Amino acid sequence: MKWWGWGYEDAEFRANHHPSFWPFAKSVLDIERDDFRKREWSLESIELPEAYADEPFLAKLRACLTPSQLTDDAKERVIHSYGKGFRDLFRLRRGIAAGAPDLIVYPESERDVCLTLRAAAERDIVLIPFGGGSNIAGCLERMDARRMCVSLDMRRMRRVLSVDRRSFTAQIEAGVFGPDLEEQLGAHGMTLGHFPDSFLHSTLGGWIATRSAGMQSDKYGKIEDMVIAMRMVTPEGVLQSRVVPKCSNGIDLNHLCIGSEGTLGVITEATMRVHALPQSRQVRGYLFPEFEGGIEAMFECVNQECMPAMVRLNDPDKTALSLAFRPPAAGFTKIAGSLFKTYLRAKGVVQPRACLMLVAFEGSPRGVSRRLQQAEAIYQKRGAVGLGAGAGRSFEATKYDFPHIRDFLLDRNVTTDVSETATVWSNIGTLYRDTIAVLRAEISKSGVRPWAGCHISHTYPCGASLYFTFGFRQQAGHELEQYLQVKSAVQQSFINHGATLSHHHAVGTEHLPWLADDISPVGVQAVSAIKQGLDPGNIMNPGRLQPSSTPLEDWLALGSPLGPTGNEIGVSDLQRRRKP
Amino acid sequence: MKWWGWGYEDAEFRANHHPSFWPFAKSVLDIERDDFRKREWSLESIELPEAYADEPFLAKLRACLTPSQLTDDAKERVIHSYGKGFRDLFRLRRGIAAGAPDLIVYPESERDVCLTLRAAAERDIVLIPFGGGSNIAGCLERMDARRMCVSLDMRRMRRVLSVDRRSFTAQIEAGVFGPDLEEQLGAHGMTLGHFPDSFLHSTLGGWIATRSAGMQSDKYGKIEDMVIAMRMVTPEGVLQSRVVPKCSNGIDLNHLCIGSEGTLGVITEATMRVHALPQSRQVRGYLFPEFEGGIEAMFECVNQECMPAMVRLNDPDKTALSLAFRPPAAGFTKIAGSLFKTYLRAKGVVQPRACLMLVAFEGSPRGVSRRLQQAEAIYQKRGAVGLGAGAGRSFEATKYDFPHIRDFLLDRNVTTDVSETATVWSNIGTLYRDTIAVLRAEISKSGVRPWAGCHISHTYPCGASLYFTFGFRQQAGHELEQYLQVKSAVQQSFINHGATLSHHHAVGTEHLPWLADDISPVGVQAVSAIKQGLDPGNIMNPGRLQPSSTPLEDWLALGSPLGPTGNEIGVSDLQRRRKP
Repeated sequence: MKWWGWGYEDAEFRANHHPSFWPFAKSVLDIERDDFRKREWSLESIELPEAYADEPFLAKLRACLTPSQLTDDAKERVIHSYGKGFRDLFRLRRGIAAGAPDLIVYPESERDVCLTLRAAAERDIVLIPFGGGSNIAGCLERMDARRMCVSLDMRRMRRVLSVDRRSFTAQIEAGVFGPDLEEQLGAHGMTLGHFPDSFLHSTLGGWIATRSAGMQSDKYGKIEDMVIAMRMVTPEGVLQSRVVPKCSNGIDLNHLCIGSEGTLGVITEATMRVHALPQSRQVRGYLFPEFEGGIEAMFECVNQECMPAMVRLNDPDKTALSLAFRPPAAGFTKIAGSLFKTYLRAKGVVQPRACLMLVAFEGSPRGVSRRLQQAEAIYQKRGAVGLGAGAGRSFEATKYDFPHIRDFLLDRNVTTDVSETATVWSNIGTLYRDTIAVLRAEISKSGVRPWAGCHISHTYPCGASLYFTFGFRQQAGHELEQYLQVKSAVQQSFINHGATLSHHHAVGTEHLPWLADDISPVGVQAVSAIKQGLDPGNIMNPGRLQPSSTPLEDWLALGSPLGPTGNEIGVSDLQRRRKP
Repeated sequence: MKWWGWGYEDAEFRANHHPSFWPFAKSVLDIERDDFRKREWSLESIELPEAYADEPFLAKLRACLTPSQLTDDAKERVIHSYGKGFRDLFRLRRGIAAGAPDLIVYPESERDVCLTLRAAAERDIVLIPFGGGSNIAGCLERMDARRMCVSLDMRRMRRVLSVDRRSFTAQIEAGVFGPDLEEQLGAHGMTLGHFPDSFLHSTLGGWIATRSAGMQSDKYGKIEDMVIAMRMVTPEGVLQSRVVPKCSNGIDLNHLCIGSEGTLGVITEATMRVHALPQSRQVRGYLFPEFEGGIEAMFECVNQECMPAMVRLNDPDKTALSLAFRPPAAGFTKIAGSLFKTYLRAKGVVQPRACLMLVAFEGSPRGVSRRLQQAEAIYQKRGAVGLGAGAGRSFEATKYDFPHIRDFLLDRNVTTDVSETATVWSNIGTLYRDTIAVLRAEISKSGVRPWAGCHISHTYPCGASLYFTFGFRQQAGHELEQYLQVKSAVQQSFINHGATLSHHHAVGTEHLPWLADDISPVGVQAVSAIKQGLDPGNIMNPGRLQPSSTPLEDWLALGSPLGPTGNEIGVSDLQRRRKP
């Protein structure tokens, strides 16, 4: 992954492949001229704090690990500084990597993890487990500059250890990346069925630690629904659960590890529920005359037991964005497209109200065909027009590309980010309308034209997830403050409407100010108690899940003062860096 | 519920309604003559310790509760002494209620619960939440005689507070009993879908605190799958979660409350996922030529997406028991039965290898018919013979009656109990065969003829639950010791085979010695840390989920010395009862 943005070094958003996109963005964001910020940063220009080296600790590590398992190389330190949140990338682009760890350790076995934890506990050294580094909620940034900090990069623990084909379970090391995992499982004819937007750049351990959701959670569940058993190395020893489908053995300890965001220990392996590779897969697109009808159609699919494996319904603004993102049409396709538009108009499906829905069905040919047939009848009842398998293919081809847009827009002084939540069906309409209004109003306060859109996905019997995307021109010199005001407003809207701070992006630093609202102050106390019990030395990713350390005002202050260089930005402790 | 046995005062097992049963039991247990122990116990004969009365505490309660909410009536104290485990009933029948609380409080609101907890915390008084009192794992017995102990009977908090018909959720007070709950939900056209064997005599709060499973868990999930949000009053305040379908807000706190067995606080309400009342329901019986074929059929139904809502497959011994339990046939039915036997023989379905399977399908008529058709094809492939809807009706009519057998057999000096677990599909055969062998061997050690049977139920994609039933003649004067040796052997077999200590009956005292094996010693430490954080005064159901207080040897010692009156039996602390 590139150190300053999303994706592989050689992958990025190419405007000529999406010729309508930048004109669309300029129009909706009120941008008059191309204000391209030259990519003049370089790895060498990053101001990296001198690496703190605790010699007794390093001596212990050198004694039990190989030299290739330890590095304080500058590039690696920069890569391990942050995840890929807006604030992370914004700072890196300005040469700031104040959150960089002092050392990166690559464990190759659970033994390596245990030895590292023990050595760290003895010397009061901070450990931050690092999966793919794709987190966008600020889960990876170092919060304490006064202790040596080690990033524990799990990528070498990547094996599928065993597959129980009879029971549809697989025992898997936690550091495996999505594509590697699917390849190994595929050799057994199996799939995990977990395909988050970050699939290419995230790991099993990261998914579990953050309660991730894949695109097809409607069929396969969220990651917490797939965990059968776990092993997590804590400073107090290895916590493990048994490989059983369900049990009644007191408090379910899998659910202590899931969502623990690196604060309790290092997830080294998990036994996951897996599935036979689907024999059939159908991806389709539909245009609904309006958003409400699309929501009703999703709801009916849930209630009539014909839920797709994946469903994404875009609101009108997100639909316009998706259409602008399409590759250019040419020749016959162009003519057909124009005829199709006429047809759509005749059916009452017109912009700006039309809403694009993408669905995928997979499983046995018989099951897929039954569900698809039932679902299409429901969609038609709501006036939807099918876009056929072509729209599906186009989605499949580009489904992991969307995050690249952010880097493209950052180059053009445009801030863009996402906030997502979940709520019950009865609350979706109000939450949607009010949050879009809040977003627009808050962005407008900084004197720029707002853009906000939403898609609904991840349906459940009781509700669904709402995923908001927003963008706006940056206020030069106040970029982070402007961003934090908007981000804060949308999160507060979720909480005010009874929704959750996040459906699948974790708490991190970005959502920490709303944790006590979400899980109640007694809930926060419970989390602290678990932390105290399993990590009494507070060496594991300290500061996370402990909102008292970051009340809302402090959090907002993290983004300011915002001098033109931005190098005062960061966790205040980092300014007071000292050696003992 | 009767104080000395299972069920309503007027309900019991009637031998003349099941004329084959006692002859069957005599034959398999090697009982020569009817050794009926006259029911000579009476409430008055119970040796009840004098009620401990902490005056400042009582004064506080009297100030904020009405007189009808407090009682130290002898009968109520006896009823609240224990659950309905074998050891509980055995002791009560011998006049022992050493575990009786000093006071019973009936809260009518969350405020009442909060006030009681605060008053108790101030005076170091033990609280044991009491739902229906049907627990059979020893979750309710007082473990500490040196502190005043209050049973918090939740039955008056029984309202369905709201139903969100759009989102299929219902907010429900925790003290509601099964039938009352279903009646209230039924008025909204809804059902929870949770029907454990104890349905008539257990509560929502009890189900959640013990991670209960209903008969139809295959369709509706276990209770932990139904909880959307909770409120639990802890000594540190009210822990509450939000009404959202799924979230990523750190550690999932619902799962701290679920399975907490009264050790962290009092569950006052929960928002549960509910379902439209099924339009169609089909219950059917089948006879399989052998157990293995039946297991394969269950497995295939899971994998071909035609799982019944309920499935129970009896092994040959449990099948023989079920057939002996049937009401007598007469006239035409008798002749038809005899012809049917000939037919079965022709199809190769013969005792002692034949296995009875009961299934229920429910939902939309279309969905039920599709699943039933698919499942029947699978059953037929395994040589099963359909018993039609009659077997289903017979099951429906008596499905909550089975626990009455234990009282009938206790009257005849026969010990009978159950132990259940869950494991993955690949392990079911070995676990089944070895555990049956262990049971028979262990029972035989006391010189009596063993009877052991099993049914498989609660299927999941990865595995299923195994439910063992066993019985044997009592060794006079050593009844509890004999029982504990057998119970201990079966639990150890579960653990040795990688299975769990219980699939749905909780830890309590009965399974506590295996908790550290099941959840790992670090897991036990995690549970203790949560306890310490939310209940620092250790007032909530102390001693549960903390295995260090009951290692295996101590646990076995609980049942002995076994004098003829048995009144030395109990928690040793209770013998050293003192007032401060």
